[in-house]
Amino acid sequence: MKALNFAAVRFAEDKLIILDQTKLPGEETYIELNTKEDVWDAIYKLKVRGAPAIGIAAAYGLCVCTRNFEGTPAEFFAYVKETAEYLNSSRPTAVNLSWAMKRLVGALESFLRNGLEAQWVCKEDTQQAEVSGSGKESCCKPEVLRKAKELLFLEAEAIRQEDEAACYSMGGHGLSLLKPGMGILTHCNAGTLAASRYGTCLAPIYLGSERGYNFKVFSDETRPLLQGARLTSWELNRAGIDVTLICDNMAATVMKKGWIDAVVVGCDRMAANGDGANKIGTSAVAILAKHYGIPFYMFVPTSTIDLNTPTGEDIQIELRKGDEIYKMWYAHDMAPEGVKTFNPSFDVTEADNITAVITEKGIVYPPYQENLAKLLAK
Amino acid sequence: MKALNFAAVRFAEDKLIILDQTKLPGEETYIELNTKEDVWDAIYKLKVRGAPAIGIAAAYGLCVCTRNFEGTPAEFFAYVKETAEYLNSSRPTAVNLSWAMKRLVGALESFLRNGLEAQWVCKEDTQQAEVSGSGKESCCKPEVLRKAKELLFLEAEAIRQEDEAACYSMGGHGLSLLKPGMGILTHCNAGTLAASRYGTCLAPIYLGSERGYNFKVFSDETRPLLQGARLTSWELNRAGIDVTLICDNMAATVMKKGWIDAVVVGCDRMAANGDGANKIGTSAVAILAKHYGIPFYMFVPTSTIDLNTPTGEDIQIELRKGDEIYKMWYAHDMAPEGVKTFNPSFDVTEADNITAVITEKGIVYPPYQENLAKLLAK
Repeated sequence: MKALNFAAVRFAEDKLIILDQTKLPGEETYIELNTKEDVWDAIYKLKVRGAPAIGIAAAYGLCVCTRNFEGTPAEFFAYVKETAEYLNSSRPTAVNLSWAMKRLVGALESFLRNGLEAQWVCKEDTQQAEVSGSGKESCCKPEVLRKAKELLFLEAEAIRQEDEAACYSMGGHGLSLLKPGMGILTHCNAGTLAASRYGTCLAPIYLGSERGYNFKVFSDETRPLLQGARLTSWELNRAGIDVTLICDNMAATVMKKGWIDAVVVGCDRMAANGDGANKIGTSAVAILAKHYGIPFYMFVPTSTIDLNTPTGEDIQIELRKGDEIYKMWYAHDMAPEGVKTFNPSFDVTEADNITAVITEKGIVYPPYQENLAKLLAK
Repeated sequence: MKALNFAAVRFAEDKLIILDQTKLPGEETYIELNTKEDVWDAIYKLKVRGAPAIGIAAAYGLCVCTRNFEGTPAEFFAYVKETAEYLNSSRPTAVNLSWAMKRLVGALESFLRNGLEAQWVCKEDTQQAEVSGSGKESCCKPEVLRKAKELLFLEAEAIRQEDEAACYSMGGHGLSLLKPGMGILTHCNAGTLAASRYGTCLAPIYLGSERGYNFKVFSDETRPLLQGARLTSWELNRAGIDVTLICDNMAATVMKKGWIDAVVVGCDRMAANGDGANKIGTSAVAILAKHYGIPFYMFVPTSTIDLNTPTGEDIQIELRKGDEIYKMWYAHDMAPEGVKTFNPSFDVTEADNITAVITEKGIVYPPYQENLAKLLAK
């Protein structure tokens, strides 16, 4: 494979650069984000998408758009908190986004609390955290503000590195299940465009390809938003991996032909019993894989496993507008005016149809109820 | 339901009118076909499509574009034969097209042979069938030419009526398997737009709706050519039947929700063992239906059953260009330049996954090898 020399989100030479995914697959355009409006807009308009990638972009974004702030440490804290809330409003339901914002704000809060205890931040200043923009002059050294800003960057970098490590780890576990030359089917996009470096379910494909495994990947186009066509086939093609694009309804045919040795997919939320919600269509692929005796592997970072959700029945599925089915992308409407539609974003793959769950902590096999709990208790 | 007051092909008040299906679902435009070029173009450009509808349009078309011919009966025969060959070249692989052309030319040939035997066509004239346009004056009465033209129209009308009767009969048999209020899933388009009046697999839906069955129909959009979105949802909506459009990858979800009580699909070719080739994606729907315990009914005119094809493995599947997947219909390309694709037009549903085969002669249940042969021997 070619070097994986592109990233959804990159912080280098003091610049936050994202690959504008709304321009894919036609153009590979990188844009620099400088202001909080830039970051908000990039997330809102899906220029950056995929839960981990959004979290990383927002974390770096919070650092970048607050780094020119001048004032007391307390005023800085108030400003960061307010900016974090603003960025968080760009996609309110994205768990990684609010998680990243809380983590950075929390780290800054601890820093200031520690400073207060160690007396390198004065009491008056930390109290101002409640009332920002008071105009009072700081009694602290400018050093503290510099340190606070540095801390935010370190935390953002930690988030990215942890994600990369988790992806790498999932990739390694996943690769242990695969053999050179295998045909692999994937659905939607849980690759480098959705995360850092290797992605989740595409991680074993990248890791294996670096080792000369010569996989033959099939990418479901993934209607209606076409993440498989626009993103997965783009990123695998870009990395020089053998990828063939098919329509979702062709998965059974490639399986029947014996071209598929394993299915790899991501996961948006896994219930305690092992039922996994993922992009619409995933559950059908799992049923077809079972019919044809093909292993079906779901890649699930442990942060995605929710033991408080007993089964897939308890996962709320987002319904979206019908025009995504017959209007979006098209030059003309593809269904008669006023036609009824049903457009769920996700479906739930039954635990029974999942051969194994691959996490960064290891591979989990059935019975999932028992084994997922054990894994999380580690 | 509303009256089914539209037709893919209609011959009325001496005019051949087709519904231009390339304008659907946006516009309901009817066009008149007068010349052989009109007919050829309409078939070639898919303004009329669906095997039975093509056969009917070509049959009427052959009558219409030869009806102004003046000459001897023999010259007329030569002209009809030549025109039939021309029309047949519009879609060379469409079986119903060549079948309809042969039937009309054959009927005309018999007519002239009978005329010769009965001596109301003179010998000299029939010999001219081999050398058309000789310029010789006919020794036959103009009556013979008029009769010959009339005969062609009667044969075309017979083709249409037989198709309508077969559809009606399949509808009745199919309806015996359904109950009022059922949820029904269909894939692709085997409705009135593909045939005459009721279509094949949509026939029980129309028949039932006329009787107040209040079906709730779900139409797979049917990638990549979107016949489900553009045609099936259009025609059911037009007839006032409750239809909901979904993406192909949502079929498992509507089944799991308990919304689907039966699946109805058409068939392009059925092998002797009951394996049935139909639009790509059909086989996946059958596997999902089996998984969820939902009956899967394939509607198969007996002309579509080929006992000389032992199994589905022996059916050649047409592969089409990849740009249908990522270019066609779209405002912009939806996959990276040069991406590999696999785009089969059809797949084979395994006989094991077909609950029953509905023909115009009755319903066939497994074992198909035995029971299909018995049906055809009737």
